[in-house]
Amino acid sequence: MTITRTVLVVSNQLHTVIWRDGAVEFIDQTRLPHDEVMVRCDTVDAVIDAIRRLVVRGAPAIGVAGAYGVAIAAQAHDPSNDRKGFAREVDRLRKARPTAVNLARMVDRTAQAATADEALTIAHAIREEELRASVAMGELGADLLLELCGDKPLRVMTICNTGGLAAVERGTALAVVQTLHERGKLAEALALETRPLLQGGRLTAWELQRMGAPFRVVVDSAASFLLAQGYADVIVTGADRVAANGDTANKIGTFALALGAQYAAVPFVVVAPESTVDPATLSGDDIHIEERDAAEVTSFAGVQVGPRGTDAVNPAFDVTPVHLIEALVTDRRVVRFRRGETL
Amino acid sequence: MTITRTVLVVSNQLHTVIWRDGAVEFIDQTRLPHDEVMVRCDTVDAVIDAIRRLVVRGAPAIGVAGAYGVAIAAQAHDPSNDRKGFAREVDRLRKARPTAVNLARMVDRTAQAATADEALTIAHAIREEELRASVAMGELGADLLLELCGDKPLRVMTICNTGGLAAVERGTALAVVQTLHERGKLAEALALETRPLLQGGRLTAWELQRMGAPFRVVVDSAASFLLAQGYADVIVTGADRVAANGDTANKIGTFALALGAQYAAVPFVVVAPESTVDPATLSGDDIHIEERDAAEVTSFAGVQVGPRGTDAVNPAFDVTPVHLIEALVTDRRVVRFRRGETL
Repeated sequence: MTITRTVLVVSNQLHTVIWRDGAVEFIDQTRLPHDEVMVRCDTVDAVIDAIRRLVVRGAPAIGVAGAYGVAIAAQAHDPSNDRKGFAREVDRLRKARPTAVNLARMVDRTAQAATADEALTIAHAIREEELRASVAMGELGADLLLELCGDKPLRVMTICNTGGLAAVERGTALAVVQTLHERGKLAEALALETRPLLQGGRLTAWELQRMGAPFRVVVDSAASFLLAQGYADVIVTGADRVAANGDTANKIGTFALALGAQYAAVPFVVVAPESTVDPATLSGDDIHIEERDAAEVTSFAGVQVGPRGTDAVNPAFDVTPVHLIEALVTDRRVVRFRRGETL
Repeated sequence: MTITRTVLVVSNQLHTVIWRDGAVEFIDQTRLPHDEVMVRCDTVDAVIDAIRRLVVRGAPAIGVAGAYGVAIAAQAHDPSNDRKGFAREVDRLRKARPTAVNLARMVDRTAQAATADEALTIAHAIREEELRASVAMGELGADLLLELCGDKPLRVMTICNTGGLAAVERGTALAVVQTLHERGKLAEALALETRPLLQGGRLTAWELQRMGAPFRVVVDSAASFLLAQGYADVIVTGADRVAANGDTANKIGTFALALGAQYAAVPFVVVAPESTVDPATLSGDDIHIEERDAAEVTSFAGVQVGPRGTDAVNPAFDVTPVHLIEALVTDRRVVRFRRGETL
């Protein structure tokens, strides 16, 4: 068995995913917002472990992480020489988590490399592309929201973390919130805390605070009621996989939020890069939903919640049918599902 | 200022609300499931503090607690002598929490007493009535669920805690689950954990485990998706106030759950004693929703979730419109809203 080498690096240079001195480094998202430490991974095992434990998370970010994982695999198993060993490592990387299409897709793309150098070049290119995609999504999304809601400061509700921590910088849905804020068009962000792992309460709150945006946190189950009470003008969420028909897999709770949006007639907008759109998946029924450990539910921020021996059902994602989605914003286009447009 | 005298009593005799030796005792629900300790209150201040801090909670239980609070007030301010002092204490008790009608109603009923002895007699009678009501709701509710879903072991989803801890014994919605279990007709209970205070994950799990019922916990935001996936046959919830038109205030998250039930065509049944039905409240719009401290959302069990300075919106309850409710089960009747019946 290979020993997983994970090294903690205390650093002021915080990055979601960055290549430094022959290894990939991640800000440890399991320890935010209280500790700001980088984790350095120089083996495939360490990268897989970081992806599984959600040290690095968010569909675009794990795509980039997987690409760098392939670059590391190519250093240990030269693709031009040890094709079999390389393929085995690539296969393990692409299966580290099942729901987001970005991981498998970026792993496969990087695995086309003939050499270790080439793999690293592709991984760097993927990172650059995701960065540019975030800027584009922010602009396109902000334009759409102001068109949908009117040109005024908006109250925007969002779920999970879709900011720079879920991508390279800026993010997907939260990039739209950030762009609105930079334009002076954000009245308030309402962040769903996003049980069980509280990516909203921990990570989105941390990012919103760093960008100086006005925000409040709400428990997930309050969202529908607050929407019905008129607390938000629009909802933006990310995506882990968008099927060919527009059905969208995203963090558990997104579907319930979409039902609340429908009831309150609040537009529900999905923001994700083209790398998240998967034409090979025909509809939501074909998306594999990751079931995670019950302990994520039966404990809270390290505290045991229920009596010993309590079991839980813990689907990490759900599927929102396209008929509940107003529009999809990618880095290249806006698809207005409610107007009958298709992917 | 009166000093609040709260005494912790370690005892094997666990009771939600009981009168012992001139004072009212509560099992401390803020410390369950890890610590099983009784809190003894012999002043009005201590009773109000216990109600506000959710040492005792659940609409029927705080009704009984309020009644004993009046009995304590009558000991300090003899109603036949110090009418003004007594009335002032009664008024403070009835306002300890705003949403559940049971508290104000039972406080007012006990306050009719002419003497301290009479107040205690009324409080005891209220406790007895709630106990009998739980048995009746369990039977009527189990009958209804088996009629709605077919005579087979049922998978029942529920929110918050509506068991013996929310009443005197057995409870409201959870009394129905318990009755099904006793009849051999419970396949599984799915308990929503119920953020922010996790009454489901802590208290309902504790009660289900004690009754030997099969159960799993789920995060609140997963409920709608699991319903759409066919995980449950029926939903039962309690109520804090049922308006004259059937609109029902209950724990935050109930409305979102009702939307999920509607989407999945799963019957949504409310179970509450007649003491929770309030003809003086015309509709849900007239129900005062308690806003609680943001810290309940931004921390759990003393652990800070988000970055320092994070604010939250924290409505403790929401309102489910009657058109989303299949039926209301009380201790005396079943009202089939979906069939056009009215209160």
